[in-house]
Parts: sequence; structure tokens; C-alpha cells
Amino acid sequence: MTAKAIGVVGLGRMGKGIALRLAGAGFQVVAYDLDYEGAKPLSEQGIKVVPSLLDLVQSLPRPRVIWLMVPAGKPVDETLFGPEGLLASASSGDIIIDGGNSFWEDSVRRAEELAASGLYFLDCGTSGGVHGLKDGFCLMVGGEKAAYDQVQEYLAAIACPGGYDYVGPSGAGHYVKMVHNSIEYAMIEAISEGFELLHEAPYEFDLARVSRLWQNGSVIRSWLVELAGEAFADDPKLARIKGVVGGGTTGGWGIQEAWKRGVPFPVIALTHALRIRSRQEDSFAGKVSAVLRYGFGRHPVVYADEQYEEN
Amino acid sequence: MTAKAIGVVGLGRMGKGIALRLAGAGFQVVAYDLDYEGAKPLSEQGIKVVPSLLDLVQSLPRPRVIWLMVPAGKPVDETLFGPEGLLASASSGDIIIDGGNSFWEDSVRRAEELAASGLYFLDCGTSGGVHGLKDGFCLMVGGEKAAYDQVQEYLAAIACPGGYDYVGPSGAGHYVKMVHNSIEYAMIEAISEGFELLHEAPYEFDLARVSRLWQNGSVIRSWLVELAGEAFADDPKLARIKGVVGGGTTGGWGIQEAWKRGVPFPVIALTHALRIRSRQEDSFAGKVSAVLRYGFGRHPVVYADEQYEEN
Repeated sequence: MTAKAIGVVGLGRMGKGIALRLAGAGFQVVAYDLDYEGAKPLSEQGIKVVPSLLDLVQSLPRPRVIWLMVPAGKPVDETLFGPEGLLASASSGDIIIDGGNSFWEDSVRRAEELAASGLYFLDCGTSGGVHGLKDGFCLMVGGEKAAYDQVQEYLAAIACPGGYDYVGPSGAGHYVKMVHNSIEYAMIEAISEGFELLHEAPYEFDLARVSRLWQNGSVIRSWLVELAGEAFADDPKLARIKGVVGGGTTGGWGIQEAWKRGVPFPVIALTHALRIRSRQEDSFAGKVSAVLRYGFGRHPVVYADEQYEEN
Repeated sequence: MTAKAIGVVGLGRMGKGIALRLAGAGFQVVAYDLDYEGAKPLSEQGIKVVPSLLDLVQSLPRPRVIWLMVPAGKPVDETLFGPEGLLASASSGDIIIDGGNSFWEDSVRRAEELAASGLYFLDCGTSGGVHGLKDGFCLMVGGEKAAYDQVQEYLAAIACPGGYDYVGPSGAGHYVKMVHNSIEYAMIEAISEGFELLHEAPYEFDLARVSRLWQNGSVIRSWLVELAGEAFADDPKLARIKGVVGGGTTGGWGIQEAWKRGVPFPVIALTHALRIRSRQEDSFAGKVSAVLRYGFGRHPVVYADEQYEEN
């Protein structure tokens, strides 16, 4: 009896974790990445790394199951609909799962386009980050229920126990992931603001120790507080890094969608603004506020070569 | 050998849970509540309910350990410094633990006043809510380290495993709790906004099922998401209740403290504002915004007997 096979396209941090979990569960994994040379070492871990999408398709038995883990947007469309894309080489009945952070409306469109050729397309929100390899991922899956049922055994191998579910028709998986990420941003900000106050407090708090304490029985116990504790254990005052926060695409979609639906989303929207602010060295809006206060009340401004001091 | 004894003052939801955990761990618990008749039934659960603070003090061997679980503010001062308060009846070497949500600066002051009479005062932030009785609480303790060491066995009985720690000198325990609550408010708001979008989404999401899914491997897994799932399982659209959010005192202190220390606290401060907004039927600020828009652009206002409609 041959093991069941699955293709994985895209071997970044998350894609690699998924390929390794599938191989670890005993599936035959055929993988492709734009960076063929960089991906090759994975073959030492039981994964068949092939040099092209076409090779990947031709290496898999029908009906094929192919997991995409490529950056959202153009790379997904290229992989599906490009000249060497899956639409051209896959066959009716094959199932493609987009495990990336695609915009849910794109997933609805892609599912429709692929369905016209008899291909199934599942949109899967994948959470868990780099820890997913060890702990298992959380998979929020949308699309045709029949296709979902066919790939459940793969999902079970990728997910942590209880960590996969069917959430609705096409787009629903990425919609739930968009909302998950929106919540995630604001939860991160909430925790971060609290630790900033502890850091500035008139006590010498051991932030790693407080984090650990909060993990045991407090209302805010959560994986993010646990992660914070690990970071503080490593660098108690986070002296080595800058407070610059990247990311925000899926959360940004969440805000637009919320406002369209009449949902205020105030804290999540503010969190997004704060991330953008964190990437600015200085803010022009701050300068304008300062000159306006100077304008009406001659409140002092801080010149470019000065430091702000509390009066 | 007689079991060690402890006094508990205040038998509300949390105080009762604490008294029962202590009794369950084999300690002799002497308890007092303003509502003596209401508290009496606890005597069937192995707790000695007494009719006055003086009785409580006189029932305990020295050095006494007395846990306060009374509302923050005046009730704590009354219990400590009132005409029949603990300062008058307790003896040098006794240890009083304020497990309530007191303002940390009050705790610093109280510890100093009590220390003048040789009494120890520990300030203990207590988290866990009504679930603490079963699961154990999270205890963040400030004050004299020597007094903390003396009461560790009681703390261990009240806390969940790993759920108690010494965080610093007087006030530090309530300071950490103030920050915990600040984070808690904004985490709750983050989760709530996300579920509001799922509720308004163009899919029929099963919110209880999504909550359960998120508990397994997602980045936002947390006790609060678990609680949300339980609430949705009970009332899928929360149709029975209004979106009015009470509380906010400790978080409000956190905001004032943060701003004093130059910590912006934006999301936590906004969450506080949103709670206040949730308690308003309508907002005068909204009315003013509407008449200003009418004033410059003749944008329509909604009159008191009309409903807003999207254009």
C-alpha cells in the first residue's frame, strides 16, 4: 500500500512547517518553491522537492490535493492562473487548498474560476506561526463541503488536536482568518500597552515573572501573554529592539470590511493606526499640532535639534 | 495538631470562593460579612461564620492572618481603621491581606499606617472571577517579603498551580492587578469587535464553533475566547442581552497612571471610553456632530422619531 500523496507549493516559514507535519504523519509530500536550490535540503527530511509546478502536478496521483502557501495576492493568481499555473495542468476533481492569508473576496473569485474547470478550491485560514510545526496549526476552512470532507485527513495532520474545522462556503475560511488577525492585532496592542506601563512603573517589576504569573489563573491568560513572557525572559527590558511593528494587511482588510458592514471596529482600527505610527520616525501630524498650539497660545514647540522635556 | 487558621472578611462572590478553597485545603476558616444572616449558610461548608469583626479577631490564634475581600475604597478603610476595625483589635505581628481591587496608592498608605502599629499589610491583586473557586485564583502580591513568606501556604491553597507570586513592595500587587485589568478590558474589546464582524458577515457563522476552533492552535487562543465560546453555545446571537458594559474602575486608574508616566495607553483608554459609551442610550456628542454637519453642508439629521438609514 502506497501512502497518500499531497503537493505543497511555497516553502516559506509556514509552508515548510506544513510540509514537514504532513511528511511526519506519513504522507508522501511533493513540494515546489520558486527557490528550488533553497528548498532542496528538505529532501533530506522525506519531502520530494521538484523544480517546477508542472513536475509537482505530474508527480501526484489523481484526484490531486495541492496545498498553496505562497504570499497573498499576485503570487496566488500566478500559481493558479499563470501560464504554468495549476489551472493549465491540474485535472477535474483535483482539490487546491489556499492556506495563505488571501483576501476572502479573491478566494470567492478563484473558487468560481476554478470550478468552471471542475477544480475544487478550498480557502484555509492558517494560524499558529512558526510554532505550528511543533504544536500543530489552527485551520479555518471554507469552500465546497464535499472537497473539505475529502481532505480532512490531511487537515488533521497539519492541525493541532481540534484545530481544524469547516466554517462555511467559499471565502468563509479566509474571512474568519481576517477577523482572527484583526483580533490578534488588538490583543497584542492591549498586552503591549500594559507591559509598557509595568516597565515605566515606580516598581522594578520582573516582566517575565509577571507574565508567568498571569498565565496561571488570571483572566488574561493566553498564548500571547506566554509569548511575551518568553521574550522578557530572553531580554528583560527589550533593550535590543525598536518598537516598530510590521504587518497589518489582513487586519486592514478587516477594518474596511467592518466599516462596510456598519461595524465600528474602534480598537482594531486604532491598533492599525498605531502600527503605522510605529513605523514613522517622527510624525508630520505631530508637527502640525505643535504649530497650531504655538499659533493660538504660543505654547512652545520642540525644534529639530532639541529634546522634549516635561514642564 | 490543630489546623492552621485564617480569617476572611467579606463573603461576596470572590470572598466566598476564597473562603471555600481555604476550608477545602484543610485550614480553619473564620469568616465575617456585613450580611451575617446571608453568610450563615457557609457554616454548613466548614466555615465558622462570626457576627462581628471583633469576634473574628478573637477567634484567631496569633499571629493572625486575615484576608480582606471587601469593595475597594471606603469599605477597606472602614474595616481597617473604623471604630470597630482591625487596627483597634489586631495585635503586633498580625498579617492583613487585602485581596480586593484597591487603588495601589491606597495600599501603600494603609501599609504605612498599619506598620506603625506593628501590623503587616499585603496588597494582593486577585484574578479569576467566579471560576476561581474551582480552578484556583491568580494572586499578585505586594508588601513586606517576610510577611509574604509567612502566608505562602494560604496563598498556595487559594491560587491555581503556579498562580501566586511576590511582585514587589507595598502597592506592587495592586499595581500589577490594575495593569492586568487594563489589559483585560482591551482584550475583551478586541475579541468582541471581531465577533461583531463575524455576526454581521455575509456568512452564517457558528460563533461557538469558531471560538472552539480558535482555542486549538490559533494565535489568539485565550481564556477569554473560551468564555466567549461558552456564551455563544448558550445564546448563539446573544439575543437575550444588551451590549451594555459595566465596570472599569481599575482600568480607569490604569489610564490615569499611564498618562502620568508618559505612557500613551491608546487602546486601553479607548476601550474605557467605549464602555462609557455603551451605557448611554444616545450620545449628545453624536447630536452635536449631526448638527455641525447639517450646519455647514445641510447633511440630513435624524430626528428623534426617525430611524437612521444608510444612503
